[in-house]
Amino acid sequence: MTVILYELQGKKDVRFSPYCWRSRMALQHKCINAEYEPVLFSQKEKIRFSKQTLVPILQDGNQVITDSWNIACYLEKEYPEKPTLFGDKYAQSLTKQFNLWMDISIHPLLAKCIMADVLEYVVADRDKEYFRKSREKRFGVSIEKYSTRSVEDIENLHHGLKSISVTLKNQPYIAGESPSYADYILFGSYKFALLTSPRNIFPADGPIMDWANRISNLFIKEL
Amino acid sequence: MTVILYELQGKKDVRFSPYCWRSRMALQHKCINAEYEPVLFSQKEKIRFSKQTLVPILQDGNQVITDSWNIACYLEKEYPEKPTLFGDKYAQSLTKQFNLWMDISIHPLLAKCIMADVLEYVVADRDKEYFRKSREKRFGVSIEKYSTRSVEDIENLHHGLKSISVTLKNQPYIAGESPSYADYILFGSYKFALLTSPRNIFPADGPIMDWANRISNLFIKEL
Repeated sequence: MTVILYELQGKKDVRFSPYCWRSRMALQHKCINAEYEPVLFSQKEKIRFSKQTLVPILQDGNQVITDSWNIACYLEKEYPEKPTLFGDKYAQSLTKQFNLWMDISIHPLLAKCIMADVLEYVVADRDKEYFRKSREKRFGVSIEKYSTRSVEDIENLHHGLKSISVTLKNQPYIAGESPSYADYILFGSYKFALLTSPRNIFPADGPIMDWANRISNLFIKEL
Repeated sequence: MTVILYELQGKKDVRFSPYCWRSRMALQHKCINAEYEPVLFSQKEKIRFSKQTLVPILQDGNQVITDSWNIACYLEKEYPEKPTLFGDKYAQSLTKQFNLWMDISIHPLLAKCIMADVLEYVVADRDKEYFRKSREKRFGVSIEKYSTRSVEDIENLHHGLKSISVTLKNQPYIAGESPSYADYILFGSYKFALLTSPRNIFPADGPIMDWANRISNLFIKEL
């Protein structure tokens, strides 16, 4: 049966959505061979079958699952014989709390750092007007006023990530000795920044960078 | 064998340390009958046997364990037949990350809110000079300048706890359907504020208050 992940697409086919990266990594962790289907902001008709307007969307045979957290839970439930994404039920709930913390407390700090870069460098030309309008409505000011590319914004992000940095100094992955979905949540944000901004948004050295390199090399098939 | 938890003591025998509350709750969760031995800041000689100067300290027969996180891990390992504090190894690592986040990102916000109240209302008279000196050295300014009892500081704390509030709106405990050590980490901070400040430091209604009431009633023995 064909498994398809619908992902946000930018200029030059860059897949920059942090949420889509979470699902992409979850599929790879579960060793599921999937097709990765790009979707521009302006291609809402392409995902109308999902009865909503956001990616990622997972199509697994006749099943359609939306929202990255739901997709992870679906994969864990439907593919129990594959490596676990969470661990036990306590770990799954704690991962959900981590997911919420990233979305609610860390992503606004990250958005402040890179939103101007997202618009300038990765949003496709035909999507730019939509992107500016929708984000400026959300932020209440122009993208350039919201995201001034200041050093202070980057320092605030690093300050917010301090506890992660301490954790990754003492162990290779967020949930201990092996990678799990908590890592992919953070990795999605890391890739988002890496693919979007020419500046170093995440710390350029230290435990978080070492960890990012470990995660980047997880699913590379040897020749 | 006697189990003793050495706890920080304030005026009128108030036990106000958030870290000592973590260990107290962990002992109760593990159904371990312990003695709770009070220690003033100025009674360092009382805990000299531990070869360091901080509480909580757990004495379990000949074993001496310091640091609240180490105490929780010790109890989980030594009392595996009692209810688990964490769940599996993934959950234990994610709880450690939660612990670090509370200590590194949330406690400074909480300290801003209540440090002046701690000094005024709960530190024992004979400890006041030590407390002021040690904290002012840490903060770099006077306690009254650091902790101005402003509404803004309380708003910043609530902002920091937003993801917790969303989690507890959707499930009774941080790690899901049953209480675990992650709850006791947060509960320690809640008790610290409750026992220290006459103001409402944590949200006075909503999911966090409902949860605090649930945790408060966990280990009350029925008549």
